[in-house]
Amino acid sequence: MEFSAQQIAELLGGTLEGNADEKVNNVSKIEEGKPKTLSFLANPKYNHFLYETEASIVIINNDFNLEKKVKPTLIRVNNAYEAFAKLLQLYAEIKGTKKGIEQPSHISQSSTIGNDCYVGAFAYIGENVKIGNNVKIYPHVYIGDNCAISDNTTLFSGVKIYHDCVIGKDCTIHANTVIGSDGFGFAPNTSGETFAKVPQIGNVVIEDNVEIGSNASIDRATMGSTILRKGVKLDNLVQIAHNAEIGENTVIAGLSGVAGSTKVGKNCMIAAQVGVAGHLKIADGVKIAGQSGIGANIDKEGEIVQGSPAFNVGEYRRSYVLFRSLPKLNDRINELSKKLK
Amino acid sequence: MEFSAQQIAELLGGTLEGNADEKVNNVSKIEEGKPKTLSFLANPKYNHFLYETEASIVIINNDFNLEKKVKPTLIRVNNAYEAFAKLLQLYAEIKGTKKGIEQPSHISQSSTIGNDCYVGAFAYIGENVKIGNNVKIYPHVYIGDNCAISDNTTLFSGVKIYHDCVIGKDCTIHANTVIGSDGFGFAPNTSGETFAKVPQIGNVVIEDNVEIGSNASIDRATMGSTILRKGVKLDNLVQIAHNAEIGENTVIAGLSGVAGSTKVGKNCMIAAQVGVAGHLKIADGVKIAGQSGIGANIDKEGEIVQGSPAFNVGEYRRSYVLFRSLPKLNDRINELSKKLK
Amino acid sequence: MEFSAQQIAELLGGTLEGNADEKVNNVSKIEEGKPKTLSFLANPKYNHFLYETEASIVIINNDFNLEKKVKPTLIRVNNAYEAFAKLLQLYAEIKGTKKGIEQPSHISQSSTIGNDCYVGAFAYIGENVKIGNNVKIYPHVYIGDNCAISDNTTLFSGVKIYHDCVIGKDCTIHANTVIGSDGFGFAPNTSGETFAKVPQIGNVVIEDNVEIGSNASIDRATMGSTILRKGVKLDNLVQIAHNAEIGENTVIAGLSGVAGSTKVGKNCMIAAQVGVAGHLKIADGVKIAGQSGIGANIDKEGEIVQGSPAFNVGEYRRSYVLFRSLPKLNDRINELSKKLK
Repeated sequence: MEFSAQQIAELLGGTLEGNADEKVNNVSKIEEGKPKTLSFLANPKYNHFLYETEASIVIINNDFNLEKKVKPTLIRVNNAYEAFAKLLQLYAEIKGTKKGIEQPSHISQSSTIGNDCYVGAFAYIGENVKIGNNVKIYPHVYIGDNCAISDNTTLFSGVKIYHDCVIGKDCTIHANTVIGSDGFGFAPNTSGETFAKVPQIGNVVIEDNVEIGSNASIDRATMGSTILRKGVKLDNLVQIAHNAEIGENTVIAGLSGVAGSTKVGKNCMIAAQVGVAGHLKIADGVKIAGQSGIGANIDKEGEIVQGSPAFNVGEYRRSYVLFRSLPKLNDRINELSKKLK
Repeated sequence: MEFSAQQIAELLGGTLEGNADEKVNNVSKIEEGKPKTLSFLANPKYNHFLYETEASIVIINNDFNLEKKVKPTLIRVNNAYEAFAKLLQLYAEIKGTKKGIEQPSHISQSSTIGNDCYVGAFAYIGENVKIGNNVKIYPHVYIGDNCAISDNTTLFSGVKIYHDCVIGKDCTIHANTVIGSDGFGFAPNTSGETFAKVPQIGNVVIEDNVEIGSNASIDRATMGSTILRKGVKLDNLVQIAHNAEIGENTVIAGLSGVAGSTKVGKNCMIAAQVGVAGHLKIADGVKIAGQSGIGANIDKEGEIVQGSPAFNVGEYRRSYVLFRSLPKLNDRINELSKKLK
Repeated sequence: MEFSAQQIAELLGGTLEGNADEKVNNVSKIEEGKPKTLSFLANPKYNHFLYETEASIVIINNDFNLEKKVKPTLIRVNNAYEAFAKLLQLYAEIKGTKKGIEQPSHISQSSTIGNDCYVGAFAYIGENVKIGNNVKIYPHVYIGDNCAISDNTTLFSGVKIYHDCVIGKDCTIHANTVIGSDGFGFAPNTSGETFAKVPQIGNVVIEDNVEIGSNASIDRATMGSTILRKGVKLDNLVQIAHNAEIGENTVIAGLSGVAGSTKVGKNCMIAAQVGVAGHLKIADGVKIAGQSGIGANIDKEGEIVQGSPAFNVGEYRRSYVLFRSLPKLNDRINELSKKLK
């Protein structure tokens, strides 16, 4: 597919500078720009690339001041980054429109499927499942009995959803992620040496507009629900344990885990490889640095923490600088001792 | 399904206080108790909820002293938690009784399948596989050649078991977990810059009553076996490397890894995101705090450790408190220096 | 299959000492040697086992000096370890030669498949896919539209490869690993409280001779490619984020993650549970200790680092020894204060 600068400018409501007939058939980063590609400039650090790039069309901000003449055709908009993302979205939508039911697939007669859905070959849909409109179910997806999946949600290949779980609208779940596996609940027997399984009879509830990466594990609740509130974004290989609740628009990066019954607030940002212990409350807007371990409640909204166990990030960094210079501190104590003698 | 207080009391051998005809059709936590649900009270911290809960029936301990009148019907037993867990188990057993062989599935003619098994659609069973009685094999499970799976074991959707592995009785393996993938064994070539694969021709042996969470990886041995002893419980996203051995009833939480040839003792508790290096021995009953790194043998039974690298947990905590106050320590050294001058 | 000492010596070009007719049908470790098995001795620590082992044949180094008579037949070679690995490789090749196309499988008419391939039942191959010769595609593998997989590559059961990705020759990807899932890219909306997805329209390029463990996640690039250079070895449960590049022959152990746009050099060794932040450069030959966190560029070739955040490994260890003795340091400061008073 080929688009002209004129078409793109109209689509974005932007202002054209240069050749309106310039054509592109792909996109590129400005620092790697190639002829016949569309690029954008949003980060001031990359400004100098605008004067060197081979990209044919570049989207820039309205308030950008050109220092000299440039080769590409420019399209000016309020927010170059957002405009570019919107174009990519349109492009992705044009590409990702699988439809229809491939064979062999397994769809129980007691289940219902909405309009414009895709069900790939070898997908398995159990009893009493309700699938909304425009849902994309890729090959090798498993949906257990009594689940409900709402409109416009995409489940990529190999996603496994255990029985009784509920997934909202406009969600995306990436390949091989598991929703609703049993929580890790075992009660020590009287002897204290062996364990009896605590049955996990709750479910997982995922609200609208949630995205989950690949190979993540969201466990079902012992009783009640493990909940991902609307707008939550989870990266690959994240674990959310039984009865945990993740607040609206909270973002959790790869290889992090939230233990059982913990309630994370809204708009939090949890970096990669973080561990949050069980039965805690994390306030809204909290930020947690990578590899931190959270062993106690965080009550203060917007707090930023680091360390294992974690505390205030500024204090952590001051302590860590001194940790690095412990050999010097030790030498100074030795000197002081000598002098005192 | 609906049950009366009378029925439940008889099932548990408990003592009834209140309306024997009270009926329930679901369960709830005591702090979230709703009418027509069954709940329990075991943790003294939650005692006050007993006087507020809307649950229709509550199981309590024989020795619990009522401070005032309560609304729900009570059932007294020796151990309220265990009694409740037993009920849940019965309930789960009533629900989870899939049987029969769905089509299309792939079962090699050289394989044998016991009685009362479930083989879901799109499951794949290779050559010379032996499946016991009452084994549940969900859709998209792969079982390689020459494997043996014993009675009452459940393999949830997407579990992959490579050739030659052995799984005991009463095991549960959750969705998308991989058993028997190659150990991470590469020998540097003479130049030291490229690697030759060391073939991994051993297997994985999982003994009875083992439960493994979702998306876990248990590698096969280079030679011999990677072994999970009976009663082992592994959480989601855990890695057990080639030739490792995990002792009886040891519990390992999410996102932890045990490296090659390490032998972990019996009744150990390893918290989340712990790493244990290769070729080590961990004594029986050892407890390891979350995010710890184990780089040396732990010889003392029942030792509790923390840190990366880990040492005694009490000592770790004392050191960590001082790590947090390093800026103050530094100030004091500065003052001492000044005074000495 | 049974082999004689004579046959093995000829295969390896080695020198026989003992009974040339001695026969073996399996392999064992020298410390666990059993009759009718082949073993090897390469590590001097294990020398004493040579005089006790029950193995029937042992491969040893040419320069090994016998201290007393031994029971097994010996085969002397230049490098006992390499010779043994070569034998295992041959053995594995004899065992792992699945061929043919099992039914039901889904192969789009627009896709092409080379000679001597294996396509297992329930495998799914999308539109315009190009599969080379001798490629092994196990059951439940998903290959999206427009992918290319080169000669001699093996994809184990449950591997998911999203559209447009490219896999080189002689690669091995273990079960349930995901290639090409969307990068974790979200742009905060103007309010800063919700996130818009940044479409991920790049791909993943995996060069020749790469091995990836099970349950790993390699995300596609936002634009351009996420790249694994030739000879890269990734362990289980590793995450490589969008637009990252891993240099030739670099090895990354289990549960580690490399964040977006980071470029790791050649011949690096990254231990388990390491996190490397985004937009960094790691020089060639760098070694990173387990559980380290990398938050800044590493410019020095061959540098060895530890810690979170990481710095030079020798310095880290000196600091950590003093961290462990912080209570003593604190006592000494208290004493000095007292004396000064």
